[in-house]
Amino acid sequence: MSMEQLEGHFRRIAHLRHVSAILQWDEAVMMPQAAGAERAAALTTLGVVVHEHLTAPQLPELIADAESADQRGELDPHRRANLREIRRIVQRASALPSQLVESLSHAQLRCEQAWRTQREANDWQGFAPLLREVVLRKREAAAALSGVLGVSAYDALLDEYEPFFTSAQIDALFAQLRAILPGLIDQVIEHQRVRPFLTPRGPFPKSAQEQLCRLLMAAVGFDGRHGRLDVSHHPFCGGVPSDVRVTTRYDEQDFMSGLMGVLHETGHAKYEQSLPRELRDQPVGQARGMSMHEGQSLFQEMQVSRGREFLSFAAPHIAQAFPDASAAQPEAFGVNNLLRLFTRVARTKIRVNADEVTYPCHIILRYGIERKLIDGKLDVADIPEAWDAGMRELLNISTGSDCRDGCMQDVHWAAGAFGYFPTYTLGAMTAAQLFAAAERELPNLREQLATGQFEPVNDFLRNKVWSVGSLYEPQALLEHATGEALNPKYFEAHLRKRYLQDPR
Amino acid sequence: MSMEQLEGHFRRIAHLRHVSAILQWDEAVMMPQAAGAERAAALTTLGVVVHEHLTAPQLPELIADAESADQRGELDPHRRANLREIRRIVQRASALPSQLVESLSHAQLRCEQAWRTQREANDWQGFAPLLREVVLRKREAAAALSGVLGVSAYDALLDEYEPFFTSAQIDALFAQLRAILPGLIDQVIEHQRVRPFLTPRGPFPKSAQEQLCRLLMAAVGFDGRHGRLDVSHHPFCGGVPSDVRVTTRYDEQDFMSGLMGVLHETGHAKYEQSLPRELRDQPVGQARGMSMHEGQSLFQEMQVSRGREFLSFAAPHIAQAFPDASAAQPEAFGVNNLLRLFTRVARTKIRVNADEVTYPCHIILRYGIERKLIDGKLDVADIPEAWDAGMRELLNISTGSDCRDGCMQDVHWAAGAFGYFPTYTLGAMTAAQLFAAAERELPNLREQLATGQFEPVNDFLRNKVWSVGSLYEPQALLEHATGEALNPKYFEAHLRKRYLQDPR
Repeated sequence: MSMEQLEGHFRRIAHLRHVSAILQWDEAVMMPQAAGAERAAALTTLGVVVHEHLTAPQLPELIADAESADQRGELDPHRRANLREIRRIVQRASALPSQLVESLSHAQLRCEQAWRTQREANDWQGFAPLLREVVLRKREAAAALSGVLGVSAYDALLDEYEPFFTSAQIDALFAQLRAILPGLIDQVIEHQRVRPFLTPRGPFPKSAQEQLCRLLMAAVGFDGRHGRLDVSHHPFCGGVPSDVRVTTRYDEQDFMSGLMGVLHETGHAKYEQSLPRELRDQPVGQARGMSMHEGQSLFQEMQVSRGREFLSFAAPHIAQAFPDASAAQPEAFGVNNLLRLFTRVARTKIRVNADEVTYPCHIILRYGIERKLIDGKLDVADIPEAWDAGMRELLNISTGSDCRDGCMQDVHWAAGAFGYFPTYTLGAMTAAQLFAAAERELPNLREQLATGQFEPVNDFLRNKVWSVGSLYEPQALLEHATGEALNPKYFEAHLRKRYLQDPR
Repeated sequence: MSMEQLEGHFRRIAHLRHVSAILQWDEAVMMPQAAGAERAAALTTLGVVVHEHLTAPQLPELIADAESADQRGELDPHRRANLREIRRIVQRASALPSQLVESLSHAQLRCEQAWRTQREANDWQGFAPLLREVVLRKREAAAALSGVLGVSAYDALLDEYEPFFTSAQIDALFAQLRAILPGLIDQVIEHQRVRPFLTPRGPFPKSAQEQLCRLLMAAVGFDGRHGRLDVSHHPFCGGVPSDVRVTTRYDEQDFMSGLMGVLHETGHAKYEQSLPRELRDQPVGQARGMSMHEGQSLFQEMQVSRGREFLSFAAPHIAQAFPDASAAQPEAFGVNNLLRLFTRVARTKIRVNADEVTYPCHIILRYGIERKLIDGKLDVADIPEAWDAGMRELLNISTGSDCRDGCMQDVHWAAGAFGYFPTYTLGAMTAAQLFAAAERELPNLREQLATGQFEPVNDFLRNKVWSVGSLYEPQALLEHATGEALNPKYFEAHLRKRYLQDPR
């Protein structure tokens, strides 16, 4: 009975989150910019209403009653897992006073809205005070959560995106990457230097790019009856499982970034669309943390779509999408050249343009800075300097006073997402580990990918991950799917195989 | 103090309504159809949350305290008016039990979603049970409201759209129209029979139509920084004052309906965009009822945009938008021919295609049927028959079993909007009365319209109506703006002048 009441209450919360998710998509894709202040106020109120629901006075007693029922063996595994998730969510929400939730939400929305123009204008002076406000509120939130969860301030924020994970585990994993990456990057760049590629000459009309993206996202399993593809400043996958909103941006001189952006977000989208339908409005029916989510997008983008097999399937579609360009330069659109293009490794200032070999360096940089920001060991004013120093050390690139393509390039901190960045690289490791497991399970996997048969691998992921929702804790889900805990050796082996061993 | 608490509470409600308005726009314009059930559930919950806010237990005492403060002379006119509106809103909301609000909202959303496909398919059998559910719930709501407001069931619903107005007043006004319209329609059709017009030959590409619409809506004063234009099944003006969402639909064989649809909705949009900014999140800052709102859209469309002066201004822009068509048929795009096209009178099944002379007949039909539905004097199953009989009587047209272009053509009843239809014709009368007042105030009005100077007439409406919000009761606002109560003589005079006297 108490469990049913809890489920009814969380169904309401899921509905309010549905509303919030669509509104956030609208803000990024549709809203005229001048409406930002009023929208921020409306979304802040919605956040407060959700928070009031998460801290409703009847919840502690209902949870205690449900736990008694569980001890009497009355809950099936899904309900037990749902109760575990509900308890954690309520615990986290109750740690934050309403006023802090409101001021945090407001600071984040204002900063995120301002970022859209300030980044373009390299306006660090305008941006810094707004970001400082977010950081200060976020530190307060981290301190409050830290007390309740019994973990460090940063780990309390990390826990929102990657439950049960710790910065100590990240430190160990990232240390391994740091030990191998600089040498590996040098080797790969040297390896690729002697293999020239042809750059396809555009323009590649946006409408043709969009059509190609729609074709390939449908081919790999995006359900267009339950989602959309649109354009936004920064690609993302939003919305709700019944209505997943994927966005990308198109560059008429380069079709590759838009296309891979869409395939990446399609990996996220397929996970959302395949969550257990009857549990979608309950916490147990949600996706299992951001590393696993990023694991799906990187599985789609890095493991599958940038591989020789997928590119053999996609090459004729790409050529057909741009008939003038491919007629003028047929070799540029051949599989071998596409493979070289889509696996090109180069040091860059911009995270979202980075290849999968250098990408972890961008994450290690951000992880180091955000930990110091939350721990109070770095002031917002000193971010550009720390950024420049980190980029020099990790990638031998100086960003100097270029904040546009330096510390202002990402929306994450503006939106208050501290503790999120590490999940990108945890996700890359997860993706490599899942792909290795898929290859063991599906001996013909690479042949299937080359011939456009994506159902077997989708079925593998659907059974092992997508349809499981949050029944297990994140690392237990990975063990359930692959037979072992997160192990960086699969990611390293993948990089060495693709970038140093595969024949070109 | 109590007044400030009330205002804080209603600010929250305004924010939740903002969220709801954008979500409704999204549903009509963006949402993939298969996501309808989940969206309906989410919006229903949001409606319940708003209703809980409107019936919060602390409100009666706060209102009583604020009324005492008012009696002590402590409230300025805007706060006094705000309190009057708050009292009415709370009174209406408290009359409905939460469960009825939820079942009504759910029935309406389901019926509205189904209507989108069922109308196209002329599927009356599929539609009728969903509509019956709406009608039954709406009757319950009307009965509950009737008791609280002390008016008849139908008047209690009408009051939501046109506060303080009654069906007795409508009966008297509509009786006058009914007395003159049949003869007038015959006369006008005869008058126009001997004045042939040229039909512009398309196709008129959608993108060119859209560009023309954007140009003209901006010219007449739509603020594009605070709004958008998109496409939907049924044109509407939604969103919020800071972000007004106008929609239309384009027919590539006929540019006129899309264009006039946009100008009509732009009339609504300008009203919303010019509401008093500092009061927008309070009831006193809202638009003053639907007749006044429709008065603005019909002022823009009928009084201004279908007149000779506006068409002289617009003609070169129209010709330029469709260079091939206008080069092939220059006379069709001349002012005289455009005026004949845009003031053509013809009996039609479809309300939204009707001209302003026959339009009131469509309203009188709907008004009669919906009163009977709410009073329990007509069953949903008998609507098609009643529709056919009414159309024969009023317009000499039979709809037979064609529900698609008969009783299923409008979304209003599906969405639960009973009591809304009469406001279209009250709005037509309001528009004519406002235009007559504007002509008295602005002796050069027609010359200004002909030369694209829309600021003077916008200023007139902004000062007299838009910026006033809900400071007055609706009929008092009309008196404030025009010097007299709603008087159908201006509408009749306008019809006679435009359709029987003006030289062509």
